[in-house]
Amino acid sequence: MSIIQKFEKLGVDNAPGQECRQNVGEIDIRGEKISGTPVDFSHGDVDAFPPIPGTLESFIEGVCMGGKQAYTEYRGKQSIREDLAAKISAFIGAKIDFEQEIILTPGTQGALFLAMGANIMSGDKIAFVEPDYFANRKLVEFFDGELVPIQMEYTKFTDRAGLDLKALEEAFKSGVKLFVFSNPNNPTGVIYSYNEICSIAKLGKEYGVTVIVDQLYSRQIFDNRTYIHLCSQKMLPDNLITIIGPSKTESLSGYRLGVAFGTAAIIERMEKLQAIMALRCSGYNQAAFKGWFNEPDGWMKERIVQHQAIRDDILKELRTVRGIEARTTEGGSYLFVKLPVMDISMHDFVKVLRAQASVTVTPGIEFGPQFVNWFRINFSQDHKAAVDAIKRIIKVMEWYRK
Amino acid sequence: MSIIQKFEKLGVDNAPGQECRQNVGEIDIRGEKISGTPVDFSHGDVDAFPPIPGTLESFIEGVCMGGKQAYTEYRGKQSIREDLAAKISAFIGAKIDFEQEIILTPGTQGALFLAMGANIMSGDKIAFVEPDYFANRKLVEFFDGELVPIQMEYTKFTDRAGLDLKALEEAFKSGVKLFVFSNPNNPTGVIYSYNEICSIAKLGKEYGVTVIVDQLYSRQIFDNRTYIHLCSQKMLPDNLITIIGPSKTESLSGYRLGVAFGTAAIIERMEKLQAIMALRCSGYNQAAFKGWFNEPDGWMKERIVQHQAIRDDILKELRTVRGIEARTTEGGSYLFVKLPVMDISMHDFVKVLRAQASVTVTPGIEFGPQFVNWFRINFSQDHKAAVDAIKRIIKVMEWYRK
Repeated sequence: MSIIQKFEKLGVDNAPGQECRQNVGEIDIRGEKISGTPVDFSHGDVDAFPPIPGTLESFIEGVCMGGKQAYTEYRGKQSIREDLAAKISAFIGAKIDFEQEIILTPGTQGALFLAMGANIMSGDKIAFVEPDYFANRKLVEFFDGELVPIQMEYTKFTDRAGLDLKALEEAFKSGVKLFVFSNPNNPTGVIYSYNEICSIAKLGKEYGVTVIVDQLYSRQIFDNRTYIHLCSQKMLPDNLITIIGPSKTESLSGYRLGVAFGTAAIIERMEKLQAIMALRCSGYNQAAFKGWFNEPDGWMKERIVQHQAIRDDILKELRTVRGIEARTTEGGSYLFVKLPVMDISMHDFVKVLRAQASVTVTPGIEFGPQFVNWFRINFSQDHKAAVDAIKRIIKVMEWYRK
Repeated sequence: MSIIQKFEKLGVDNAPGQECRQNVGEIDIRGEKISGTPVDFSHGDVDAFPPIPGTLESFIEGVCMGGKQAYTEYRGKQSIREDLAAKISAFIGAKIDFEQEIILTPGTQGALFLAMGANIMSGDKIAFVEPDYFANRKLVEFFDGELVPIQMEYTKFTDRAGLDLKALEEAFKSGVKLFVFSNPNNPTGVIYSYNEICSIAKLGKEYGVTVIVDQLYSRQIFDNRTYIHLCSQKMLPDNLITIIGPSKTESLSGYRLGVAFGTAAIIERMEKLQAIMALRCSGYNQAAFKGWFNEPDGWMKERIVQHQAIRDDILKELRTVRGIEARTTEGGSYLFVKLPVMDISMHDFVKVLRAQASVTVTPGIEFGPQFVNWFRINFSQDHKAAVDAIKRIIKVMEWYRK
C-alpha cells in the first residue's frame, strides 16, 4: 500500500465542519429554496450556548502569567493537573493521581489520538463499535491496526445501549488488543447500562484487553438517568484510559482542551507521543480549564434542561413522519436519524439540504458503512432555529422519498 | 517489537521543558551552590522577549467572533489562510495558493508531525541531519521509518552549514523517500549556503525524494547574512513542504501556532491527519496569527539586534575558556556548545547545573548520539541573566574538568 492509498481511506470531505469544501455538481435538485435561519447541525452552536462564564478571563490570566504558563510540562501544568484530577475524581467517584495518571491534550480528539497511538502496533486487532465516533475507525486505519467492528443494536432497547456482548467476548477471545467506545455513544446518544459497562470491564480484565472510553458527553445526561463510569467499577481492565473534555456541553471547543486519565504507563506513553505531536496542549489555553467542573450554581443543570427541551421538540417533529426513526437521546447533543428510502444518496441529500434549505447534517456512513440511510445532528443550537430546520429537512426529504 | 519497546525509544525525560521530572539521585556533587538569577536555556524566555504587541487583543477579537472562529475548516479559517499565504509569499519570494497549499497547525511541532505522518510508511528510508532537531529522529521512529543519518560537519566551515552532500546523494540513490532538515539548523544555529540549498533541491528532484524543511527561525538571521529559501528556487523537488511559525522570534509559543505550506497533495493528506489528530489548530488561537509578519515598524529588527548582542556576549565568555567550542550562531537563538572531557556524564552535568547553579541546558545527545560532550542553549533570555548563567556553567564545568 502506498501513502496515497493509505490516506484515501481517511477521507474528510464529508466529515463535520468540512462541508464548505464540497460542491453540488450534477445532483438532481428538486423543489424551491426554502428560506430560514441557516443551521449547521454538524457541531454545536457556541453562540446559542456560550462558553462557561469567566473562561476568557481565565485565559487572559494565563497570558499574564507569561513564561510559566506558555511553557508547561508536556503532560500539562502541574497545578492545573492537580486541580483537574481532584475535580474529575469527585465527578467519576474514583481517585486520579495528578502526577502519574492524567494528561492535558489539544481537545478530546488529541486525547483519543494519543491514546490510540500509544497502544496500537501495526497489525493489532482493534475492536470498536458500529455506530460510533467516526475517528475511531480512522485512527485504527492510520495506525495500521486491524478493524474488528462490534455491532450495537441501539434501536432495539431503551434500557441499554444494545452492544453485542457475545460478539465482544468472541472478539476478545480471538486476540483483540484494544477496545474503544464512546459513552454516551456518538452518534446515537444512548448510554451504556450498568450490566454493559461491568461486562466490558470484566471482559477487558479477563482477556487482557486495553479499554479506551470516550466520555466527552458524560456530564449531559437526560431524564435523570443513571450514568455508569467504567473507571469507578470494582473490577477493571489492567489498562484503561478515560477521555473527557470541556468542548461540548461547556462550549469550550474553540480553546481545544481535552483530558485523558487512567493507567500511568499509558499516560506516560501518551506524553511521549504528545512531545512529538504538538509538544503540549497550548499553554495559555490550559488556563481556561479553571472554570470547568466549577461552573456557576445551576449553570450546568439549566444547560441540560434546555438541551432536553430542544431534543423533545425535534423528536416531536420527526415522529410525525412515516418512515423516520430515531431513538431518544439519553446523553449528549446528538440524534441519529434514519430516513425512509429516497431517490438520492445520503451524500447528495446532504448537499441538497445545504443548498436548498441552509441546513448542514452529517451522513450516517461516517459512523459505520451500513448507515446509508442515516444522518446525525448535533442539536445544541438555537431552539427555534433548530426546530424550524428540522421541518425543512422533512420537507426536502419528502421531495425525494421513493 | 512491543508498544512498550517502541516507546522506550521516544524518551522525553531529557527533552527541553521536562527537566522538572528528573531527580538528582546519586551524582558526585562538587563545589557550593552558586547564587544567581535562574535561567532556563531549554527554551526562550517570553517574559524577557514578550509576544508581538496586540496578540492578546487579536485573540480576544477571535473569541468575540464566537462560533465562526471556534469552528474552522480543519486546515484553518479561510480568511486567515488567505492573509498568511500573502504575507509568507512576500517573505519567501514565491507564490502560495491559500486554497490548496497551506495548513494551520498546533505549533510548528504539529506541522512537522503532520508532514512526517503524511509521508512516511513503515520501512521507508528517511534521511535526516546530525545534529538536528531531536524530534526529527523520534518522528521517524514513531512512524516506523528507517533512519538514514547524514552528517553535518558544522564546525569546519563558516561559509556553509557543512552538510555532507556526497553522503546525501548516496542516500538518495539508495532509495531514501524523504529528507527532513531545519534551516537555520537547530541546535547549531548555522544556515545553509546557496549551493547547499540548490543541491538539496536538485537531488530531491532528481531522485524523487520528498523534502521537508523546517524554517522556524528563518526570520532571525544575524550579521546581515543571506538566507536562502529552498521553496523559492527554480529547480524544486516534486514534493516539498516548508514549515514556519511564530513560536520563537515572535514569542507566540503559548498560543501553539504553526504553518506548513507546499505541495497541495501533501497538504491535503496533512489535513486528513490533522482531522484525527486534533481536528484543527485551536480556533480562537488562529486569530492570534493576525499580527505575525505585520509587527510594528522596527520591532523585528530590534529583536534581532538584541539577540545578536546576547549571542556575542555569551560567545565572549565561552571563548575565554580552554577546550570549549561553539560556532557563531548565524540564525535563530541556539548555541551548540562543546565542553572539554569531564569526570561526569553530560546528563549528570545537566542535573548538577540545575541543582548547583540554577541553570537548565539541553544535553547534546538529544540531537545525535555522538554529541556526548555538547549541550544546547536557547539564548533568547534576559541579557544580563543569560551572561551570568554562562559564567556559572563555566565555573561548574571547571569542577569536573578531567
